This record gives sequence, C-alpha cells and structure tokens, in this order.
Amino acid sequence: MSSSFGHIFRISTFGESHGGGIGVVIDGCPPRIPVTEEIIQHELDRRRPGQSEIVTPRKESDTASILSGVQDGLSLGTPIAILVRNEDQRPGSYDEMAVKYRPSHADYTYDAKYGIRALSGGGRASARETIGRVAAGAVARQIIAHLAPEIEILAWVKSIHDIDAHVDPDTVTLDQIESNIIRTGDPVAAEKMIERIKEIRSQGNSVGGVVECVIRGCPPGLGEPVFDKLEAELAKAMMSLPATKGFEIGSGFAGSRMTGSEHNDPYRMIDGRVRTTSNRSGGIQGGISNGENILFRVAFKPTATIMTPQETVTSSGENTELKGKGRHDACVLPRAVPMVDNMAALVLCDHLLRQKTKS
Amino acid sequence: MSSSFGHIFRISTFGESHGGGIGVVIDGCPPRIPVTEEIIQHELDRRRPGQSEIVTPRKESDTASILSGVQDGLSLGTPIAILVRNEDQRPGSYDEMAVKYRPSHADYTYDAKYGIRALSGGGRASARETIGRVAAGAVARQIIAHLAPEIEILAWVKSIHDIDAHVDPDTVTLDQIESNIIRTGDPVAAEKMIERIKEIRSQGNSVGGVVECVIRGCPPGLGEPVFDKLEAELAKAMMSLPATKGFEIGSGFAGSRMTGSEHNDPYRMIDGRVRTTSNRSGGIQGGISNGENILFRVAFKPTATIMTPQETVTSSGENTELKGKGRHDACVLPRAVPMVDNMAALVLCDHLLRQKTKS
Amino acid sequence: MSSSFGHIFRISTFGESHGGGIGVVIDGCPPRIPVTEEIIQHELDRRRPGQSEIVTPRKESDTASILSGVQDGLSLGTPIAILVRNEDQRPGSYDEMAVKYRPSHADYTYDAKYGIRALSGGGRASARETIGRVAAGAVARQIIAHLAPEIEILAWVKSIHDIDAHVDPDTVTLDQIESNIIRTGDPVAAEKMIERIKEIRSQGNSVGGVVECVIRGCPPGLGEPVFDKLEAELAKAMMSLPATKGFEIGSGFAGSRMTGSEHNDPYRMIDGRVRTTSNRSGGIQGGISNGENILFRVAFKPTATIMTPQETVTSSGENTELKGKGRHDACVLPRAVPMVDNMAALVLCDHLLRQKTKS
Amino acid sequence: MSSSFGHIFRISTFGESHGGGIGVVIDGCPPRIPVTEEIIQHELDRRRPGQSEIVTPRKESDTASILSGVQDGLSLGTPIAILVRNEDQRPGSYDEMAVKYRPSHADYTYDAKYGIRALSGGGRASARETIGRVAAGAVARQIIAHLAPEIEILAWVKSIHDIDAHVDPDTVTLDQIESNIIRTGDPVAAEKMIERIKEIRSQGNSVGGVVECVIRGCPPGLGEPVFDKLEAELAKAMMSLPATKGFEIGSGFAGSRMTGSEHNDPYRMIDGRVRTTSNRSGGIQGGISNGENILFRVAFKPTATIMTPQETVTSSGENTELKGKGRHDACVLPRAVPMVDNMAALVLCDHLLRQKTKS
Repeated sequence: MSSSFGHIFRISTFGESHGGGIGVVIDGCPPRIPVTEEIIQHELDRRRPGQSEIVTPRKESDTASILSGVQDGLSLGTPIAILVRNEDQRPGSYDEMAVKYRPSHADYTYDAKYGIRALSGGGRASARETIGRVAAGAVARQIIAHLAPEIEILAWVKSIHDIDAHVDPDTVTLDQIESNIIRTGDPVAAEKMIERIKEIRSQGNSVGGVVECVIRGCPPGLGEPVFDKLEAELAKAMMSLPATKGFEIGSGFAGSRMTGSEHNDPYRMIDGRVRTTSNRSGGIQGGISNGENILFRVAFKPTATIMTPQETVTSSGENTELKGKGRHDACVLPRAVPMVDNMAALVLCDHLLRQKTKS
Repeated sequence: MSSSFGHIFRISTFGESHGGGIGVVIDGCPPRIPVTEEIIQHELDRRRPGQSEIVTPRKESDTASILSGVQDGLSLGTPIAILVRNEDQRPGSYDEMAVKYRPSHADYTYDAKYGIRALSGGGRASARETIGRVAAGAVARQIIAHLAPEIEILAWVKSIHDIDAHVDPDTVTLDQIESNIIRTGDPVAAEKMIERIKEIRSQGNSVGGVVECVIRGCPPGLGEPVFDKLEAELAKAMMSLPATKGFEIGSGFAGSRMTGSEHNDPYRMIDGRVRTTSNRSGGIQGGISNGENILFRVAFKPTATIMTPQETVTSSGENTELKGKGRHDACVLPRAVPMVDNMAALVLCDHLLRQKTKS
Repeated sequence: MSSSFGHIFRISTFGESHGGGIGVVIDGCPPRIPVTEEIIQHELDRRRPGQSEIVTPRKESDTASILSGVQDGLSLGTPIAILVRNEDQRPGSYDEMAVKYRPSHADYTYDAKYGIRALSGGGRASARETIGRVAAGAVARQIIAHLAPEIEILAWVKSIHDIDAHVDPDTVTLDQIESNIIRTGDPVAAEKMIERIKEIRSQGNSVGGVVECVIRGCPPGLGEPVFDKLEAELAKAMMSLPATKGFEIGSGFAGSRMTGSEHNDPYRMIDGRVRTTSNRSGGIQGGISNGENILFRVAFKPTATIMTPQETVTSSGENTELKGKGRHDACVLPRAVPMVDNMAALVLCDHLLRQKTKS
Repeated sequence: MSSSFGHIFRISTFGESHGGGIGVVIDGCPPRIPVTEEIIQHELDRRRPGQSEIVTPRKESDTASILSGVQDGLSLGTPIAILVRNEDQRPGSYDEMAVKYRPSHADYTYDAKYGIRALSGGGRASARETIGRVAAGAVARQIIAHLAPEIEILAWVKSIHDIDAHVDPDTVTLDQIESNIIRTGDPVAAEKMIERIKEIRSQGNSVGGVVECVIRGCPPGLGEPVFDKLEAELAKAMMSLPATKGFEIGSGFAGSRMTGSEHNDPYRMIDGRVRTTSNRSGGIQGGISNGENILFRVAFKPTATIMTPQETVTSSGENTELKGKGRHDACVLPRAVPMVDNMAALVLCDHLLRQKTKS
C-alpha cells in the first residue's frame, strides 16, 4: 500500500523509469466528471523532459493513454487507469551505476531494503515516478473544478541557489508563472535563475531551490484532525516527492522565532465573513482550512547526479570513484512546480470528498 | 480514520481535553512484548502539565490505566487500550471563549467544519490530545527495543525564540537532555531559555521554538517508497502535532541553497559497512534509511493563548476583543520534546514491522 | 488494523472477556447526530447475559459509558469512545481450561498464532468481544435514521436445531421479534425452540441455528464494486462474528440448483419506480442495492462449551479429557440476533456515507 | 479503495469488459520472488473464454503483459502492474441492452449508483473483471510457494444444477480436476454435468452450481481476529466474485442443525502435533487456522443472460421485453473454479505476510 495515496480519492502508482511504462490507477473518482487524455496530457507536458533549454534533454513524449474508467469523456465512477509508455531507454548510460552506488541517490538504500534493485535509471527512485502523480493530479483538478470552482492552486519557484524570487501569492497568475521557463512569478529573478542554472550546468554541477504554493479560494472546513490535518497531509505529499528536504506552512520556521502577540492572526468580520487580518497561520488552524490562502514552501536539494568525480563504493563493498553520465537536470525546480501543485490538488480533492461525509 | 495513524502498528486516539478521558487503542502490537502501566506513565510524565516552573501549572496527574491487551506484563497481540481520566476540569475559565473565537486557535475552524465544537478547553485541538500518542509511543519503544535494540530516539529543544542551543546529535544523551527543565543538551542555552520564558510569560506573551530529533542506530532499509517514504511519514507525524509550522530533514531548507558537489554525501567503506562521510541526507536516501543518523527539526509557533487583548469575532459574527485566561504554557517546547520523540517512535516501530513483510 | 471495521464510519474494538473492560472507538461519525448512553444501552441490553431463562445466567450489567466525542447528547464529529467495564469475573471457573484446550474453541489457535493467550474466559475469542460492535451499531442506527429514515433493519431466529420458524420478511415487526425470548417472528416455533434449548441444556449439550436478517427501505445504489460489494461486506461482517459457519443472500445455496429462467428477477415499473417482481437477488445486484428488501441468513454452530467429557490435549502436548464448567449459553441464537442486526447497521451506515462521495 | 483488496499484499484492479484493457496493480509483493508472464498466463488460461465446448465461445486470448515491478524474472519489491488488452469487442451485440435493463444483471444498479454506466458489456460487472484477480492470484501463489511450500490450494465443481460430484478434499489432485472440462474431481459426475450444460444451453437457459475449495498444508496461526478472521476474509473474497450467493465453511449451514457433542472436533496428539480427529470446524477456529484442511463452498447462481424473452424495463422507465443475445456461458462454474482458488490464494498470501509481523 506504500504506492497508494489518498483516502476517498485514492491513487496507486506503478512503474520504473525503464521498463514497460509508468502509470496510475485512480479509485474513487466520482462519476460524470469530464476526463480526457488531453486534460491529462496538459499537466504531463508541464512535467516532461526536454520542454526547455534548462531541463534534461531526454526525449520522452510522455503520452498518456486512458485504459479504463472513462466513456465519451466522462468518468464512470470506476477505476481510471492511465498508462505512459517508456520510450527513450538508454540503459547503456547506466552501466557503471549498476555496480557503483551513486552518491545521494537511492541505489544503496534500495539494495539494503529489497536485496535487489532496478539496474538502470533509478527505478522507482527516479523523478520519472512522478508521472503517475501528475496524471492523477489532472483528474483531481477536474473534480475540484466541479465541487469547488473557486479554488485555485498555483505553485512557482521561490528560490534557486541563493537567488530569491519576489512573488505575491495573493495576485500571481498561472500565465505569469508559465511565461518563463523557470516557472516563477518574478521575471527579473527568472532571468538570473536561468543564467545560474546554465553556469552551474557548465561546471557539471547542480543546484537546489524552493517551490512555493498557494491554494486560493479554499472553503473553510477542510482537513481531518488529528492525524490527517490538512498541513500534515500536504507535508506528507510534498516530502514524498523526490529530492525534498523540508516543508513549512505560513510563518514556518521563521514563526518559531516570534512571540504570540506578533504571530497570532486577529479575526475580523469582512464582507460578512470571518476573516483574519494577517495570515501567519498559512490558511490552516488546528489542521482545518480557515478560508484564507493556504501558503506553503517545499525545499528541494540539488540534483544528486553531477558530472564531477565523487567518492563512492561498489555494491560488493569496495571504495571507488564515480563520475555522472547521462542527460540530467542540473536543477529540478522548473519541473518540480507541476509536481508540487498537482500533489496539492490530490490532497485538496481527497479532503473535499472527505468533507462530504460530515453531513 | 482521521484519528488513526500507522499501518501495521496502528493507533486510534480519542478524547477531548474536557470530558470522560483521553486515550488510545493500539492495534498490531506483536505478542509477548513487555508492557506495563509504569512504562507508559514514564513517558506521560515527561509530557504532563505542572512538571516544572516554566510549564502550565494545571494539576493533572495524567495517570494511565491499561484496559486490555496485556496480561502479567506482556502484550497478548490483541488491541491495547489505554485510558487517562480527565481530572482538573475548570470549564468556567473558558466561558468567554465559548462565544469568542480565540485568535490562532481552532475554535473557528472546528465550527466551520463540524457545525459544533467542544465548548470548553479546545476539544481535540488541545495539546492534551497528544496523551494518546505519547502513551502509544511508550509501547512502540518497547517493540523497537525488542526488534532493534541498537536504536536510540532522542529529541531536544534546538531553539526558543532567538536563543539557539548547541547540541551534538551524535553524542547527546537522554540524561543530558532531561537534566534541565527546557529539555535541551546545552546547559548554557537552557539557562537563557528559562529566563526568556519567564520574561515573556510575565508580559502575558508567549514564544515558539524548534525541536530537533535524532534516530541513532537505525538499520538501513526502513521506509516505503513512494508515498510512505520514511521522511514523508515523519513529516506527517510531526505536522499533525499541535502548533507545528515546519519540518526539515538533514540539510533541510539550507540544503536548497547548496550545489550538488557541496551537498552530496560520499560513500566509503568503514568497518566493513557502507557509510557516508557526511550526512546532509539526514540518514534517509530515496525515502529509505541508509544507516546513518536520521536527523530532523520541527518548528513550533508561539502558544496562541496570550494574556493581552486581541481583536477577534464572536461565533455569531460580531467584532470584539478577547484576553486570554486560564493556565497555559507560555512556551510549549519543553513539553513538545516527548511529543516529537514519541511520534518518531511510532513511525519507526511501524516501519520496522513493515520491513518484516519484505522477506 | 484487524480489530477495525468500516471505511468512513470506522470502528476499532478492544477488550478481553476478563480484564479492565470492553469497548469501541468510533471514528467518522458525522457531527450533530443524537447519541446518548441510553441509546447505546438499549442495544447492549438485547445482547447481555442473564436477560432470560434460556441464556447464560452470568450477571453482567454491561453498562456503557461514553468517554468522548459527545456533548449534550450530540456527536461532535470526533472519535466516540465507549467503555463497558467487566464485572462478573470468576477466573477460577477457567483454571482447568488454562492447560487444556477446549475443543472447537480458539484456545489452541490463539496459542499457535500469538504464543500467548488470555488465560481466562477466552479473551478476544469470547462472544463478549461483540459488545463493542453492538455499541457501535447503536450509533450507526442513529446515523441511518438521520440519513435514510425509511431504512429498517430486522433480524430474527430462523431456525434452532431442526426447528424452523416461519417468518415473513416483508411484514415482520421488531415488536413481534422481541415479544419472545428466542427473538423470532413465529410464536409457535418460539415455544418449541424454548423447550428444545431447555432439553438440550439439561443434557449438558448445546445447539446451533440460523439467523435471518432483512433490510427494508434501502435506497438503490449502495455497495462499492468490485471488492466492497454490499453482499461481500455483509458476508465479512457476519463471518467475523463468533460461531458463524455460513452466509447466504437471496436465493443462496438453493439458488445454485435453479436455472436462469427460474432465478432471474423480472423488472417492472411499479408506482413509478423500477421494481423486481421476485427477489431471488436478495435486494442486491452486481454488489449494489436495487431498492428491494435485502435478505440474508447466517448459520451459527452449536456452542462449543458442553458439560460432557470430551477428548482433548494439554498445551504441553498430552492427550487428556475435559468437561465444560461455568455458565454458558446452551444456544447462542437469541443473543446472536442483535449481533447480526447491529453488524448489518454498521455496514449500511458505512455505505450510506461512502455513497455521499459519489456526487 | 473499493477496487483494492488485501492489507500487506494489496491488489488494485481496473478495467471494463470493453475498453483499453483490464488489469491489476499489486503492491506489497516481497522482492526476489520469481514472477513471469508465463506464470500469470497459466492461471489466466484456466479462466479465459473459448477454452472448451461448454464455455462462451468468445475469442479473447487474454494475454498478460507485465508493465513494472519485475526484472529478469524476479520481483523488485515495487508495484507489479499487469495489463490484458481487450480484443474481441463487438459492442453491437449489446445495443438493445443499452436501453433495456437485463434482468438480474447490474445494469439498473450501476445507473442507480453512478448515474452513468458502461454502455456495452456490463463494464465492471462483467465476469471479465476477474482477470485482474486471477493474474494477481498467480503472483500470490508464487509467494506462498516461497513462504509455505507445503500449502496446496485446490478448487473444483461440487455441483451443477442438481448433479453433485463426489470428491475427497483430502486426496483430490489438480490433475484430476483439470482432466475434465467441468473441473471436478469426479469423472462420472463430470460427464453428467457436461450433458446437462449442453441440454440447458440448447434451451437458451442457464444453470448455477457450487464450487468447493480446500487449502491443504496451511500452518496453524493464520487469520487476524476479530474482523479479519480467516473465514471472514475468505467470505468477503468469494462474495465479491460475480454471481455468488452463498459461502459456508466446514460444517456450514448443516452444522447449524447439529448439537455441540456432534459438532465439536476432539483434539488428539498425532505425530507430535495437535490435530483434530474430525474437521467440522473446516480448519479454522476463532478465525485462526488450526493446521487442518481449510474447506469451504461457494454458491453461484445461474448465469443471468438467457436466450428466452423476459420482462424488464427501459432506462427511461417503460415496461418492455428483452431476449439475451451474444456469446455467454450457460454455466459459469468451470471458469469460476480458477476465480475461487486464486481469490483464496490472495487471502492466504496476505495472511502469511501479516503473520510475519507478529514476532
């Protein structure tokens, strides 16, 4: 069950980076929701390799086909299976990696856990694994649009290396974010970030960064205390993505250095609604949405594959050196944005459906 | 199912801060594990009010009784129910709060979600809810001691307000942490933190801070990709605790500002084992433990209840003011330490048992 | 998780027949449902020992207390914990049974599974375990009354030994069933059954029988293919009750000897509704209710404890003899009726709530 | 989650009878288990149409392809996705059925539940849905062979219409069962059954029957009280199969007409093991296997599709008549045998893995 996520809207993903294909089975999609391959493809295209000059040049079209659960563009209420065939397999690139553990990859830990591992491409530890999540996220968005059309979920690159973007979570638009290949709402920072990635890549090195995500228009009342609090489910969703090292919501770690009088969000009646006049809570109080913008950040480490020699060991226990090969992202952030916003969509969709059982 | 946590070792908690009592039912404890009320009480005593001069003076003994699943000090393999009766009920303190939403508490969101809420003491949103988790953590520790006795789980206060403690995760001991009422491994910082809490409390204000936790001696191979990665489960566990705003593992948010060559952990054979010579991964790679120390941090916001007037609204939608009353922690950190280390024990125990199904 | 049942309305039971107590935690009860100790007690009283001259004379009042989740007679939406303290503990009666495995009891299998077992009273294998189920059933009934007040769930004794009752599932009433201590809708058969039980008991022997259950007024559309079909969930619910040996729905085993033209239920429009003019389907088609009466039967074996000497072995592996002692039901059927109808209520309630997530 | 089954070894099936394909994702298969397409195909071939003169002549090769989770014939410990493409699509045969509800099919109930349904071939209510179960059963058998090689799971046709087969569950072999197209261990009855099916089919009618299943060599200790008792899980597994109307274990319904002294199974030490000298318990006591043969029976109703005119209604609510068309089984029993034994394998495999977490 470790490859399943969600309670009512529950996805089960499968597939290695190399092999027959990658996909997802969605159980719990309500019936009569518009679902098409085009809708799914749109999200997958935001995630796929080769989409711009700063991401991996691997040529995978990542074409989704719907195997079940949909008829004439509408969901049947039965499981929706989506398959993306693998295409650009060059296992040759990975020969050396079959015997040498790549530093800060999962080669060693998969061997330690399973006593066997996919010998090429990282198996389930590859970022390619997220295809199933993103495809399911596209379906989740359709349900959200049906149940709570006022909800908007937007993510963007908040920082890359030491370059910070200045983005207003209350006003940034999807068009602004998608207008640059970094996927950030700050065009000036975007230019600097592109330059930095190119520079780092030319050195055979890599960089990390932070993705920020806002959920606007979320109705109050979503989230299921005490373990399935909305921020706890978002944290799990994000920390299950490859390469993530941290999650914070609202004031986050900075909030831990404040006093209560600085941190508390006063309530006021505004336009007949209970509102807070600040949002250090990040839109969630006691694990339940309060109707304000839900705002969180996710830290991504630098890509583990670098082109300079590194100390490592072989699977038979000898010290050695390894130099990265193959076509990798020097910075995963631009492609991490759709992973973050689609995982957020999965969480929101599930909680909208869970809330329906409260009355 | 939102009050259940874990897969094989699965706990279901219940209870409001006021009412008959608080407790937990543990399903999946292996048989023949030593479990006694004393063992459980030991952990509860680390969490309970009134334990020192810097925590809330509420007088609750938080006495645990085992209702089922244990015979002559050994688990039967059947559900273990543990009950802590509520004692020090002064609902009078909360009268005003029944109509006025306390800022940055969960009063409003519970009303928005359920259309009803426990009118005194915060209900399930009270930190008192964590009793069930800590009691279950005591049992989880017994199973860990049986299955992997080399595992040590230690948490401590890393910072309070702007005061940072300097603690070496590789060497700090439980005795050092428990030797001061802050629960930190740095006696100098402890003194400053105590002074700061007293000062802040005298102003009717509150402060937040950060808890750090290390898991030493964890065998390689724990964690269940792709959604139940070890860090994802730890993140959910921690972010489901009251007042948490952030989680980071290993290099965390700082790691997002590094390059790959700075961040990657080289492998070396040391004493016949695969080891890393640095630990920016925080002991987990690809969602699976690698045998190094698992190290993470959890941010806690300042306690929401403060003794100065704040703007708020009533449940009937009128603007008003509220001033905190009652006996509250001005800083939750000392009592948060056992919440963090026991939640970590729940996650570890569950994953040790899950790993047994892999062979 | 093996002591939990249900998906949205999820119960977790605990407790041995001897020990601190027996109970249940209910997670997923919608808020603002009327729940009181009286409502729960009413169902428990139908199940408890000593209620009539033909059941075990053990004196247990089985008094329920609600520990959490309810305020002023209304559910809060948080977990409802219900506890029944054990009272009439005479472990002395069981001394011999501690070393000798009682034939057709679970003493041996618990030892085989867990390597330890509750040394008195059968532990979780005692029919006393069903207290938690029945208490939760009382709450489930309240939710059903709120969501689908037209639903009636009635069970009755269909046969005891070779005596069959003639009961019309379409018209039988709760009053008719509860008007005799057998709990059947056929007063003539009831008299014969009472005589048979007394006769069998006087011989130190025991008898089995069949309980039949009808769910009237069930809306079409409940049940979740393909694994959580309504009959599959009912079957699991019933076969998890102690002493059950069989489950059949509608035509049941007799239906397997029919042809399609004899078995199929024709559809007709009646009063503007789609109806079937026969009901060999038992109210469920393809795992989903069709609006007709759901009708099923559950076979119970004769009580295992008998007062005549039987061959058995000791826990240390020696052949021996054992003669039952203690105060046991010679026939479990009258007390099985509320177990069956309340388990049916648990299933129905869960599926009513699951159906709410389909739109 | 309604299309998922199992706890540790968990399968999620998908696919309509017509559409892209049918399949299953298996989560929780231990690593390094031999799994090949040939092994899966072998079980699918026992289930597929067109395999003999007495089953539906539909021409579907039901060819399985493994999409993930297997490398060089060994499981990786990651999800195993198996896909069977649909081939023989003749939606034309079903035109009339799109508007007229087929009696005792699930057309009406799917419409009632989902407000939409697969307009051809019965969608998920088709017996074709069981492909995913059988494919997963083939994998489950491999795990069982690895963990408990002494276990044998055999099912056979016990009766068709009023013809009973005489089969000794203790000695019957797979070869005997597979030596006739009925799949029964009684060659004389097999001939009669074949004649009966042909006769019934020539009348445009159909017949039901009973499948019996034995699990030999099961170690004591499997089954998880109180809700996941072994017989409860078997009952759910079987009652989730299409067309099933009843389940009984050991003495079954007949046991309800016995006395305790007749029904109890005496224990004796035999060859140093605790054994029972009779087996009315059917190999399970208190929900846990006792080491004796597990023996159960499953009732199947006659196939709903018959070639004679029947009264029914249209989806727009008008009375009408319908006469079956297409190529259907006049008796599902021969193909039900691999459904039953493979579902039993799924349950056993899951419980073998669950038992590993008890120590």
